[in-house]
Amino acid sequence: MKKWKRSARLVDMTRRLLDQPHRLIPLNTFVERYEAAKSSISEDLAILHDVFQQEGAGILETVSGAAGGVRYIPKVEVGKSKEIAHYLCRELQNPARILPGGYLFLSDLLGDASLVRDIGRIWASYFADHRVDAVVTVETKGIPLAYATASHLDAPVAIIRRDSRITEGSVVTINTVSGSSKRLGSLSLSRRSLHEGARVLIVDDFMKAGGTVQGMVDLMAEFNAEVVGVGIMADTRVEERLVENYVSLATVTEVNVKEKKIRIQPGNLFEYWR
Amino acid sequence: MKKWKRSARLVDMTRRLLDQPHRLIPLNTFVERYEAAKSSISEDLAILHDVFQQEGAGILETVSGAAGGVRYIPKVEVGKSKEIAHYLCRELQNPARILPGGYLFLSDLLGDASLVRDIGRIWASYFADHRVDAVVTVETKGIPLAYATASHLDAPVAIIRRDSRITEGSVVTINTVSGSSKRLGSLSLSRRSLHEGARVLIVDDFMKAGGTVQGMVDLMAEFNAEVVGVGIMADTRVEERLVENYVSLATVTEVNVKEKKIRIQPGNLFEYWR
Repeated sequence: MKKWKRSARLVDMTRRLLDQPHRLIPLNTFVERYEAAKSSISEDLAILHDVFQQEGAGILETVSGAAGGVRYIPKVEVGKSKEIAHYLCRELQNPARILPGGYLFLSDLLGDASLVRDIGRIWASYFADHRVDAVVTVETKGIPLAYATASHLDAPVAIIRRDSRITEGSVVTINTVSGSSKRLGSLSLSRRSLHEGARVLIVDDFMKAGGTVQGMVDLMAEFNAEVVGVGIMADTRVEERLVENYVSLATVTEVNVKEKKIRIQPGNLFEYWR
Repeated sequence: MKKWKRSARLVDMTRRLLDQPHRLIPLNTFVERYEAAKSSISEDLAILHDVFQQEGAGILETVSGAAGGVRYIPKVEVGKSKEIAHYLCRELQNPARILPGGYLFLSDLLGDASLVRDIGRIWASYFADHRVDAVVTVETKGIPLAYATASHLDAPVAIIRRDSRITEGSVVTINTVSGSSKRLGSLSLSRRSLHEGARVLIVDDFMKAGGTVQGMVDLMAEFNAEVVGVGIMADTRVEERLVENYVSLATVTEVNVKEKKIRIQPGNLFEYWR
């Protein structure tokens, strides 16, 4: 292994830190790897921190003491988050999304890996200080958002199924009633997917009255898990809401099937986050 | 905006390139952003390339000419890929995974966002030169792997459903027969999820005889899409295989329910990739 030049060291440290968000890396790891003085490493980390912060990409958090080190916390600035939400709103407004029954076609947006990653980064930023142990979602369309969020939080994902499958092993199942259509259903989560007492962030793509989200919250109680937050890509304006405690990026205020018109406004996230 | 120092520029360029894999960035973007000479930017890019390559993280590909620029191609070295495959094999060997009927519990592995990202990077490396337009999978467990792969390829994801949902709009559906259990089923993909003639990479978590993968290949033909590769996390040794053209990270050679024993070996990927 050749000796590390400072320029190469900066590139490599950047790469390593970005690749391991929320993970504490002891300073000595860098000291030994680059055969450099602790003071030089600290100087470099200060540069990284300044650039990340200036560019709205996050911060480096330094923990002092024997068990100390540095960790990269991804952050999106509220301004950049608003840009992403506005892009989402513009896309959602496209009347070609209207399906029979007033449903909206979203699969193309959820198939856009880059948009999904941006949304995941927003939830990871907003809930960065909530010590999230696991990100929980329900199949199918919430899954990409859950992974994008989890990968920025260094947390595992647990996927709730609508029907229990043989491949899930022993499961906990609860029955649900959809808040908007009063349809019955069930939600199941494999016992092994979540440890008791976990601090859980719930992520989903779409919420009407919130029957499914309320079902997920109830299911979490069966695991003695604590729901520390709920992040929804798009919610709808409804008369009676089953869930109040959530944040959304966009709100569908009207879907007019006859006139082929959709009205969207930025979600409630920006009432809390300024 | 303060003037960029070279050290800060190196950190920021690293961050920007890593964040946009497979995307061509014109050199002028950097020249203007950092108010630096083209020759300085080129020198910096050479340093980034050397560090990425030395650390087995990928390469910077330079395209010359007026429409030229630089793009970051993520790569995992075959050695590192083998380490990941070995870790996967060790995990799969745990007899606690055995479920009734000889099924294996995999949800914990697929819930591990860091392992999933590593596997996605392997597929993105192996298929880096295949000009993939879209990554295709079938719900549910293949979804995380598909997104991890797609985010390293800068490609969208299309999710095939086992039952067609109202929220998918108009779909193309085909009927399938499971190769191992001869069960009937169907696979549907929303028309809008994939454009005609796309070059497609199929990704899934598990394959027995390959009935589902063959179904996905057949469905792709309905879109006039070209399947340029198939990447499976774990396959099983079977007498009669419906699909031959695929790569896997691990192969389950035996599941003995009575003796609670699982035998695993590295998958066929490493027969092709040395």
